[in-house]
Amino acid sequence: MAGNGAQAVGHASLRRANLSLVLRHLRDEGSCSRSDIADATGLHRATVSSLMAELLDRRLVREVGIEHVGAVGRPRRAVALDGSHVGVLGTEINVDYVAVYGTDLAGRVLVERRVGFDAMGMGPDRSLKELGRVAKEAIDDLTRAGATPAGIGVAIPGLVDVARGAVAFAPNLGWRDLPLAERLRAEIGDVRAPVMVDNDANLAALAEYTGGVAAGTADMVYLTGEVGIGGGIVVGGRLLRGADGFSGEVGHMPVDPTGSRCGCGRTGCWETKVGLAVLVRAATPELAYELGTAPAPDPEERVAEIARGLAAGEPRMLAAVAEVGRWLGLGGSILVNLFNPRVIVLGGYFAKLAERLIPPAQAELERLVIAGPAARCRFLASGLGFGAASRGAASMVADQVINDPTAVGSAPPAVTPTNLAGR
Amino acid sequence: MAGNGAQAVGHASLRRANLSLVLRHLRDEGSCSRSDIADATGLHRATVSSLMAELLDRRLVREVGIEHVGAVGRPRRAVALDGSHVGVLGTEINVDYVAVYGTDLAGRVLVERRVGFDAMGMGPDRSLKELGRVAKEAIDDLTRAGATPAGIGVAIPGLVDVARGAVAFAPNLGWRDLPLAERLRAEIGDVRAPVMVDNDANLAALAEYTGGVAAGTADMVYLTGEVGIGGGIVVGGRLLRGADGFSGEVGHMPVDPTGSRCGCGRTGCWETKVGLAVLVRAATPELAYELGTAPAPDPEERVAEIARGLAAGEPRMLAAVAEVGRWLGLGGSILVNLFNPRVIVLGGYFAKLAERLIPPAQAELERLVIAGPAARCRFLASGLGFGAASRGAASMVADQVINDPTAVGSAPPAVTPTNLAGR
Repeated sequence: MAGNGAQAVGHASLRRANLSLVLRHLRDEGSCSRSDIADATGLHRATVSSLMAELLDRRLVREVGIEHVGAVGRPRRAVALDGSHVGVLGTEINVDYVAVYGTDLAGRVLVERRVGFDAMGMGPDRSLKELGRVAKEAIDDLTRAGATPAGIGVAIPGLVDVARGAVAFAPNLGWRDLPLAERLRAEIGDVRAPVMVDNDANLAALAEYTGGVAAGTADMVYLTGEVGIGGGIVVGGRLLRGADGFSGEVGHMPVDPTGSRCGCGRTGCWETKVGLAVLVRAATPELAYELGTAPAPDPEERVAEIARGLAAGEPRMLAAVAEVGRWLGLGGSILVNLFNPRVIVLGGYFAKLAERLIPPAQAELERLVIAGPAARCRFLASGLGFGAASRGAASMVADQVINDPTAVGSAPPAVTPTNLAGR
Repeated sequence: MAGNGAQAVGHASLRRANLSLVLRHLRDEGSCSRSDIADATGLHRATVSSLMAELLDRRLVREVGIEHVGAVGRPRRAVALDGSHVGVLGTEINVDYVAVYGTDLAGRVLVERRVGFDAMGMGPDRSLKELGRVAKEAIDDLTRAGATPAGIGVAIPGLVDVARGAVAFAPNLGWRDLPLAERLRAEIGDVRAPVMVDNDANLAALAEYTGGVAAGTADMVYLTGEVGIGGGIVVGGRLLRGADGFSGEVGHMPVDPTGSRCGCGRTGCWETKVGLAVLVRAATPELAYELGTAPAPDPEERVAEIARGLAAGEPRMLAAVAEVGRWLGLGGSILVNLFNPRVIVLGGYFAKLAERLIPPAQAELERLVIAGPAARCRFLASGLGFGAASRGAASMVADQVINDPTAVGSAPPAVTPTNLAGR
């Protein structure tokens, strides 16, 4: 029986953990003096100085000069997260687009693009070629900005075997058993950065946790709101993955045994109550597309139309959205009973119709949660839009660097007056 | 925004972590030599020797002499987990009984008792008095055996505010907002051991993870099978607690909007499909008791009667159990879609009827889980019976000691020949 957490804590890993601690503190708190860091982390000042020397040497932090803090203007010599030579690249391939989001380690955005692409129609080979092409262009953009990619994250709408970097099953793309990390690495050729793959909802949850409406909320759930409904679950500040990385498949919870047939072949899945196709069918039956088929052209336009109908007080649309809201609350109550999160963040079309969806959803949630008001949980609309998953993929790479700063190849020293002095 | 895991790793906590590491290794692996431990943990041999000296001094380990290992009989000087002077006490108060389970740190059972008690009828004050009385007797038993209690764990069938050690709401006991740890400490008087409170399903899950059918399975779910259905969820080797400690409330997932009324006042909760009262009503309608009322006298006798009916091939009973099995699989599929566990352990009456319940449950699970066979998950019957929660409460206390061995008061040195030499 394996004891959990049974790993040796040796001196090399202690140093690594402390480098990581200091770096994370600077990321979360902004610029600080060495003595602020010592106070906040409990490390000795001498230790902080030694760690800082190494981080400066690796160019992961930079001196920002004297700052004056507070009313009395106490001056301090501050440092800040740097890593402008470290690139982190997040990518996403989804049903109808490829997206990239690249930053340096400090989060400065260097490239952000979304390219329309029919991944479902094109099949895995041509999709991987396109993902490789877009990723490679983004890597060139990062490199030109002086940031060498430390890793490439990929978000996929489906079940991902995270350890192998493989897609087990992506129903909306029609992919099965695809060794994505390996194939993408072959596409991008001589770039040596590792490729990490994860589920799109997981990564969107990470983006929300890192810098969205639920930033820093240790227990939260993120829901994608598209034709399919995925979930990303953060538990105690960490993504829940489960035994195979297949956790958070909220869309196919059976919530109505007498309900309608789902695209997956089962009956009464939550997706048949709150998926975009269902709302479109109820709100605009004359334009409806079939459940479980490919998304109709331009789902965003359909959502915009529903939003206009709601604004105009169209009774059929108001009723359809209220009904989806109630089912959103019912499924949400299962999530709250099981995970006890503080926030459920609504992505995709849910976010766009949040004003009308949240009141009935929140009322149903409060009626159904067994812990009642003791388990305070609110629905919140995401502000990250379609960029959430690629942004989360970039976060995953940045976390990796911050967890082990010693893995960043020692950068060529910057040209400073001191370097030049002897010439 | 708080970075997760942002804590200083100083030298005192490093030493504590390494003491804990060695102790956990001995608990999980049995007796070992110092060099086995160095190899397994990656610690230097000198470090292991120094840690071992402290653990021997605290009498948490003991020398077991020369052992001969393997075919070639290589001799080694082995040590083993000791802690025979450290008592850990687990208790449980439930609808119709109080249970205690006390061991020393090495897991040697020193006291185990289950006392019938009508906690629901007696109300919180008299129930606390009874729990205090039974706990105190157990403490006396531990103390007589030379083991001073390092802590007292309490399992409660309800929502527990773990940080405060308080019961937020225990519907089947009728308790609300009860500061249990504080009250129990007052009952047991001069015993200075800390009191830790948690939900019974959580603690039963911990007992299963520590030493039951799913021992060491890092991702697992435990289900109590009584009138109420509770869940304990282990994720990555740790109990899932959620923002308030209210996670795992599986019994009130709404699974049938047209279903029957639950004891909680809502409609179609999972408990109305798989709770003991429902099965009894379907299998032996002439003896049925009302849903949501107190359990009928001797639910165990009812279950035994159903088991006899099943053995005799009684069609009504076979049909009733098969129907519960299917609903068990349906609710189980929600848990597998969300948590992706490797095992769902069935406790309570589920375990007693496992032979007939598991086949339909497993079939339904496999039909409904979206990841299909990729998410391998099996239903298994618990072997721990009613003792699971008190056993888990004792595990919780033992974990606490193993996580921080320096908190164990330095024990009076044992009388050894060396001690006596100078007299």
